Amino acid sequence: MTDLSGRDLVLTRLIPAPPAALYRAWTEPELLKQWFAPKPFTVAEAETELRPGGTTRIVMRGPDGTEFASSGVYLELVENARIVFTDAYTRAWEPAAKPFFTGIITFAPEGGATRYTALARHWTDEDRAAHEAMGFHDGWGRCADQLADLAARL
Amino acid sequence: MTDLSGRDLVLTRLIPAPPAALYRAWTEPELLKQWFAPKPFTVAEAETELRPGGTTRIVMRGPDGTEFASSGVYLELVENARIVFTDAYTRAWEPAAKPFFTGIITFAPEGGATRYTALARHWTDEDRAAHEAMGFHDGWGRCADQLADLAARL
Repeated sequence: MTDLSGRDLVLTRLIPAPPAALYRAWTEPELLKQWFAPKPFTVAEAETELRPGGTTRIVMRGPDGTEFASSGVYLELVENARIVFTDAYTRAWEPAAKPFFTGIITFAPEGGATRYTALARHWTDEDRAAHEAMGFHDGWGRCADQLADLAARL
Repeated sequence: MTDLSGRDLVLTRLIPAPPAALYRAWTEPELLKQWFAPKPFTVAEAETELRPGGTTRIVMRGPDGTEFASSGVYLELVENARIVFTDAYTRAWEPAAKPFFTGIITFAPEGGATRYTALARHWTDEDRAAHEAMGFHDGWGRCADQLADLAARL
């Protein structure tokens, strides 16, 4: 884990699955539901409108039933290689209450496996620090483990 | 001119030119330079990388030679119909110091002319008010006159 700048949080893993399996797990709602929330949280709803400007919407559910909805838009999709999205818009092109971060997810072939990199780039240093304090590394790390487990089975 | 919400500033004109002429004037750098700055300001440089995520960069020059550079990225381009861009990024996907607005420009056929609508949608009510105080209606209005003059000659 390396911070490339004061505004970035980064998680990277070498995952023993092909880029196409990871891209599917990120883009197909039924697969996304299986790994995107750190257990015991679950994903109750997942929407992935796969085009620039398309909506991405996730509803997580806590063990007590409380639901947490988040939405954003895709900015860039390169099949099996790269996904960029942001929460600065709730849908095209409705400004969110607060632009918080841009997610840049890359899948790069590396020695028969895939170098998986999830970068969260914030508009301010303060937001990066808040995201880290909210448990970015632990949360995204546990989800990456769940993603690797799922991808190995695809 | 109508404000659709507290965060929007809108300018609309019926321009006697086809949508394709207005789209060209918005996207071809040599045409953009002829109308995008309210005279006596001029456009010294214009870059239009026409794809979602492509850079749009304009350098305006004041009568005393002072230059003002601004840059953003395109979010959506529908030929002859619609252009969406934002200053929330300086290029794909570098967060700007401050996300200020999203520009939604539409060209709709209307009775042999074109309904031209330039909407500036801000992240906050305060930013909308600041943009209005900076002279949005006068500045964009004078540019729309220049745009109409140019489009009539294309």
